[in-house]
Amino acid sequence: MKLWDKGISIDKKIEQFTVGNDREIDIHIAKYDVIASKAHAKMLESIGILTSEELEKLLGGLDILANEIETGTFEIEAQFEDVHSKIEFELTKSLGDVGKKIHTARSRNDQVLVACHLYYKENLKLIQTKTKTLFDTLLDLAETYKDKVLPGYTHLQVAMPSSFGLWFSAYAELMIDDVYLLNAALKTVDQNPLGSAAGYGSSFPIDRELTTKAMGFTTLKYNVVAAQMGRGKNERTIAAAFGSLCNTLSRFAMDVCLYMSQNFNFVSFPDELTTGSSIMPHKKNPDVFELIRGKCNKIQALQTEMILITNNLPSGYHRDFQLLKENIIAAFEDLKDILDVFNFSIQQIIVKDVDIHDDKYKYLFTVDNINTLVVEGQTFREAYQKIGGQVQDGTYVPDTSKKHTHLGSIHNLSLDKIRDKFPS
Amino acid sequence: MKLWDKGISIDKKIEQFTVGNDREIDIHIAKYDVIASKAHAKMLESIGILTSEELEKLLGGLDILANEIETGTFEIEAQFEDVHSKIEFELTKSLGDVGKKIHTARSRNDQVLVACHLYYKENLKLIQTKTKTLFDTLLDLAETYKDKVLPGYTHLQVAMPSSFGLWFSAYAELMIDDVYLLNAALKTVDQNPLGSAAGYGSSFPIDRELTTKAMGFTTLKYNVVAAQMGRGKNERTIAAAFGSLCNTLSRFAMDVCLYMSQNFNFVSFPDELTTGSSIMPHKKNPDVFELIRGKCNKIQALQTEMILITNNLPSGYHRDFQLLKENIIAAFEDLKDILDVFNFSIQQIIVKDVDIHDDKYKYLFTVDNINTLVVEGQTFREAYQKIGGQVQDGTYVPDTSKKHTHLGSIHNLSLDKIRDKFPS
Amino acid sequence: MKLWDKGISIDKKIEQFTVGNDREIDIHIAKYDVIASKAHAKMLESIGILTSEELEKLLGGLDILANEIETGTFEIEAQFEDVHSKIEFELTKSLGDVGKKIHTARSRNDQVLVACHLYYKENLKLIQTKTKTLFDTLLDLAETYKDKVLPGYTHLQVAMPSSFGLWFSAYAELMIDDVYLLNAALKTVDQNPLGSAAGYGSSFPIDRELTTKAMGFTTLKYNVVAAQMGRGKNERTIAAAFGSLCNTLSRFAMDVCLYMSQNFNFVSFPDELTTGSSIMPHKKNPDVFELIRGKCNKIQALQTEMILITNNLPSGYHRDFQLLKENIIAAFEDLKDILDVFNFSIQQIIVKDVDIHDDKYKYLFTVDNINTLVVEGQTFREAYQKIGGQVQDGTYVPDTSKKHTHLGSIHNLSLDKIRDKFPS
Amino acid sequence: MKLWDKGISIDKKIEQFTVGNDREIDIHIAKYDVIASKAHAKMLESIGILTSEELEKLLGGLDILANEIETGTFEIEAQFEDVHSKIEFELTKSLGDVGKKIHTARSRNDQVLVACHLYYKENLKLIQTKTKTLFDTLLDLAETYKDKVLPGYTHLQVAMPSSFGLWFSAYAELMIDDVYLLNAALKTVDQNPLGSAAGYGSSFPIDRELTTKAMGFTTLKYNVVAAQMGRGKNERTIAAAFGSLCNTLSRFAMDVCLYMSQNFNFVSFPDELTTGSSIMPHKKNPDVFELIRGKCNKIQALQTEMILITNNLPSGYHRDFQLLKENIIAAFEDLKDILDVFNFSIQQIIVKDVDIHDDKYKYLFTVDNINTLVVEGQTFREAYQKIGGQVQDGTYVPDTSKKHTHLGSIHNLSLDKIRDKFPS
Repeated sequence: MKLWDKGISIDKKIEQFTVGNDREIDIHIAKYDVIASKAHAKMLESIGILTSEELEKLLGGLDILANEIETGTFEIEAQFEDVHSKIEFELTKSLGDVGKKIHTARSRNDQVLVACHLYYKENLKLIQTKTKTLFDTLLDLAETYKDKVLPGYTHLQVAMPSSFGLWFSAYAELMIDDVYLLNAALKTVDQNPLGSAAGYGSSFPIDRELTTKAMGFTTLKYNVVAAQMGRGKNERTIAAAFGSLCNTLSRFAMDVCLYMSQNFNFVSFPDELTTGSSIMPHKKNPDVFELIRGKCNKIQALQTEMILITNNLPSGYHRDFQLLKENIIAAFEDLKDILDVFNFSIQQIIVKDVDIHDDKYKYLFTVDNINTLVVEGQTFREAYQKIGGQVQDGTYVPDTSKKHTHLGSIHNLSLDKIRDKFPS
Repeated sequence: MKLWDKGISIDKKIEQFTVGNDREIDIHIAKYDVIASKAHAKMLESIGILTSEELEKLLGGLDILANEIETGTFEIEAQFEDVHSKIEFELTKSLGDVGKKIHTARSRNDQVLVACHLYYKENLKLIQTKTKTLFDTLLDLAETYKDKVLPGYTHLQVAMPSSFGLWFSAYAELMIDDVYLLNAALKTVDQNPLGSAAGYGSSFPIDRELTTKAMGFTTLKYNVVAAQMGRGKNERTIAAAFGSLCNTLSRFAMDVCLYMSQNFNFVSFPDELTTGSSIMPHKKNPDVFELIRGKCNKIQALQTEMILITNNLPSGYHRDFQLLKENIIAAFEDLKDILDVFNFSIQQIIVKDVDIHDDKYKYLFTVDNINTLVVEGQTFREAYQKIGGQVQDGTYVPDTSKKHTHLGSIHNLSLDKIRDKFPS
Repeated sequence: MKLWDKGISIDKKIEQFTVGNDREIDIHIAKYDVIASKAHAKMLESIGILTSEELEKLLGGLDILANEIETGTFEIEAQFEDVHSKIEFELTKSLGDVGKKIHTARSRNDQVLVACHLYYKENLKLIQTKTKTLFDTLLDLAETYKDKVLPGYTHLQVAMPSSFGLWFSAYAELMIDDVYLLNAALKTVDQNPLGSAAGYGSSFPIDRELTTKAMGFTTLKYNVVAAQMGRGKNERTIAAAFGSLCNTLSRFAMDVCLYMSQNFNFVSFPDELTTGSSIMPHKKNPDVFELIRGKCNKIQALQTEMILITNNLPSGYHRDFQLLKENIIAAFEDLKDILDVFNFSIQQIIVKDVDIHDDKYKYLFTVDNINTLVVEGQTFREAYQKIGGQVQDGTYVPDTSKKHTHLGSIHNLSLDKIRDKFPS
Repeated sequence: MKLWDKGISIDKKIEQFTVGNDREIDIHIAKYDVIASKAHAKMLESIGILTSEELEKLLGGLDILANEIETGTFEIEAQFEDVHSKIEFELTKSLGDVGKKIHTARSRNDQVLVACHLYYKENLKLIQTKTKTLFDTLLDLAETYKDKVLPGYTHLQVAMPSSFGLWFSAYAELMIDDVYLLNAALKTVDQNPLGSAAGYGSSFPIDRELTTKAMGFTTLKYNVVAAQMGRGKNERTIAAAFGSLCNTLSRFAMDVCLYMSQNFNFVSFPDELTTGSSIMPHKKNPDVFELIRGKCNKIQALQTEMILITNNLPSGYHRDFQLLKENIIAAFEDLKDILDVFNFSIQQIIVKDVDIHDDKYKYLFTVDNINTLVVEGQTFREAYQKIGGQVQDGTYVPDTSKKHTHLGSIHNLSLDKIRDKFPS
């Protein structure tokens, strides 16, 4: 048959088309399939479907696989379509008929779903930890640079005085909102779906509370149809939370790239964190922060993908759901790297002395001048007119002496209060 | 000048372009500008910028406006570019110079931001209430119809037995995950941003804790830059939460429309909730649920808009943020309607008796047949082969006697446990 | 019944929910419903369903309505759910039974669809004209400012010399690609869908070629199912084309806003095109370009909405399609304004003299220095090292004498060739 | 240093972060880098920078690499960050100093850009060919099954008679609109960007018309800034075109999956094209079409990613653009597979005999009954009432005798006219 390019037979093409790159993706969830299989086996023994000897054998076999996964020697060869068939094959090879019994009272959908819940949960926690680390770094930087002045812009126009302390801690405080969403995602995935089988449960008297405890889930997704419909819902919730955090990081990276421009020249980085050009010998480019920005923007787009794959599909499993795993798992792996690299790199930042007396910055202080007049008894409107007149006729002299005292202002950053707000 | 169509002068066109339809949108936040202005005035008095007589006058003037807003007589005429200038104008008109003092130590950006926080907070709570109402309705329907059988599908193919009880309560339980996101959004907006002024705070010694209490916020967005950067972040968080809830509702509506098709014929609605056709006299169309689906899908798309408006913009206010209000406020108003209409309509649902003995449904029970053999001592694989053989040679007889006993299964819906999981 | 807020009865709420704001939107398509109705009436007469007297009466009645629409006196009162029922009502009121005959052999879906095709087609052409106007403006500006130097940036770092001529004409040439997409959208909508009725055609012997000619369509959407499925497909194609053009405009506006910043100070605008601040008397903000950017970003998000409303819906009409009209028509109206405002405003731009000898710009010329050495016989690598060394030890002297001669370079802008490429 | 997980040193982590998986992606564009390098070398010789002997050597060296790429032995080892450095390394290794000269008057950005244009162009043409193949298949199927009746649905409710001929050819005709967008994308990429260097051109007197001809481009992207800004614009245009085609395919696949459901039972597929279940022995699932739908939906989401990566970035190269390649190239490869698999699979479709006399379908013909009465002289309204009355009182008898004669209707599919419309 000559239908296909490159001499690939139609059967092989169809097979490739349906398997996709599940094997590579599944390496990430192998560990969790083992954990779930152990919990399922214990439960099967508790309801009399496995004997205690059979259970021991299965747990032993699964521990051997867990060890291979941990040490990186575990492989999913081409004859297996996914990690689940590979694991069942290995158990049956080493344990004989006992290996076949593990699939009683569950289905493949069950396995994929519960392994994803476990992967998501553990990795969301990792991301929360890394987020907290970056949060702390930013507050430390804010403390360190709290007296360094930075021009504040609105409409990209010179506006009012700001500071590096304010800038660093602004992004820290914004990350708290992102953690609210990460926590919501964590609650969503911290529910045991095992037992939904193909999406309609099982006529075996399975004990879902036992598996819930064995896997360390806080609660169950009770309704088996709801559990199955978590496919897609889990992923879009995670994508929303990731998107929020990535939005914060991306905007921070944009600031960094802009502030590194010779036209701002507010910050720089050691040479190791900049890259050169193949044709311009003078270049020191902020590639790390550009890639943070770009990768974060990519992750922000992920939610649309998650929605489009599942939207308007009637309830019940559809094979389309297989496609959800690939990019959400890639986003987890990327986001962990982004947080590590951001945290490492931002600590290397070189904060420049901004010459606030440069002519282009002098109007930063007009509001402070106005406020002085108001305190002296003029109405705001009169004072505004007066200072405006000075700006126009060139007689304006900046008042750089004002202190901002209120909570969250330049001279009262309230870092401890921000630190206290971080959700536990 | 002949540059413009329709004889509109360039100045007018530019003005229209910049004002947009702020006047119509701002009607929704007028109430909250008054609340925030009252809090701000009290604070100004507490730090000595207003006398107590001035405060009394301002509070009186603001109460009059609040009353007009409440009764619907408040209007933003064409000479005002937004609600904030309208309110300041009215105060100054009735109170003279005192009216001008209210703007001391705040900026327009401040006002828009805090009014949005207040609108978002109050309306998120309304949406949570309406969500809970629908949740309760669905659990009640699940209880009512728990014994009504429904074919369960996977891949849109007849799969295993389900029930109306399972179906209704699945969507109820999924809404719990949506509430996690609504709660995250609520936490994000329940922080007082007032005092950020143009985004860099104020040199007046404003008391932000006083305004926080006066407006009933749980905490402050301390950092003034972070507070200002809430523009966009608030909206995308809300859009994410709305999107999640709308995804649940949209998929439910899809099921309803499909199940109303003559080819499924699982449910119907009274005539008042269906519509006819201009050319086909036999039609009873599920327009209400189609519009729920469509409107929910529109709201799911909103997050992309919120991201695109703000993404890659450096920190500091940009006029682009003005555009965030329109569609997010429309989404609030739409979503409240959607929840009301869904809750009303779903209670009118007519659940049909599905003839589970119809030939096309008989394979629903193959897994139950297999499980019976397994309990009798056969391995799962043998039993699967045996029943599969019966399906192929036409000797298969469904075993419709099985009871599903585990948590969250057809015959053990665990409605109380689901009810208990609803976040307080 | 106390189910609803604000005392609105359930029936009224449901009615509002289904009608939405069709009345306001339909004002935009009223003109096109009349055009299509006239074509349909002529066709009905040609196949003997109307007499020539009846046709005359109908055409007369429709012309009266066309005149009301043109002059702005046409209104869709609250008792009509859309423009189509309004028009049929008016015809029947003034013409009696003849008015009722116009609906023979068509359906409401037909009417909405063909009116949208006509609106889209005429307005796409308007947008193309306005795009060409802006394109010409930009090429004129490029010609005017071809000798004004502008620093070129990569990674937001000073890179190589550019010019205002290059900058203006870059955006002009990019708009050519946008026109390719606008043309694709135009081809998509320039196909007569009338005759698809409810999506499956009609048993009347309607003459679709006659209506095609009467309405000036280039061809037909032959297949009636395909014609009906244009709902959604038309809108997403238009949204893609608009998004592309808006991406170009949005990025241009970003440049303008950045270049207006005091830290770049490359361009400014007359006071009429900038706005001030309620608290900072020195401010001249680029609100017009910020709003162009923001509105363009909003339009870029529109495609996701169009996709989500229709995606995964089986073939055949669904009521969800009603929701497509609102935001796509708003985008048409906005985009026409954006193009007008952009074209007017960009002509007011004040191009500054950039002091290319400022220290921060001196490395703009390193590549030119290298190339001089290469032309003198050194290898590129040697020359790169040498100039790099001079940069490091502070001995580098810029060579600002180089002329770029190749097509499309600073000193050979090739504006005529770009102009010639604009699709006819 | 203990900052990183898994013992990866910080330098290595940063390096991985910046290189990403460029090596794997670049395999797809290696062939095109060679083609562009050959054209560039010829041009350098024509302007005297290379001797003809040097040119011969370079062409020879490049041909060897082209051969390795063709035969699959070409590899990008870990020491190279991308295909461009690998190729330059190989040329220098085999040719000495001559190898180094190839980089004169171009930059890495140039190379990536032109290689992408070439890859996009060739693969867009492949996709157009495959689209035409599927189009022809669908018209053939329409011809084959033109007499097979299919119920037509609106609102998923039984509406009016349709046919398999109408259904197959509807999707064919819709694909024509998709080709308009593919053609627009092709025009966008069929412009030679080589010579833009780092985005601001070169001071060498390069001959861009020569390279344009040598590489077979139809025209140039003249302006060097515009050429460079093609990064992102090319990709989003392609994503828009792919999204449109994928929308058509996805909706077709949805129909197929729905029509395979036992509740419709309109079509089926041979066992090789369906898959079973791990627990339900009776299952024959339409996985191939579900995966087509899912993969197409994923591709529809791609445009949002392309927009988000580039949106609101000022002009000039940013490292973020490196991230554009990965998913757009994956989409090309996927879409070619999707078209192959769709075309192969749809030919295997088994069209069932739908029993149009089944009770649930009888109202398909109400409009035909009405039209008969209209032709007999009743007004449409009277006839509608009469048939409506028969439906209600159960006396309705379907009139299945009507022929639809107009263009594009069930009995006049106009397949030749649709075929003629396919853009050349």
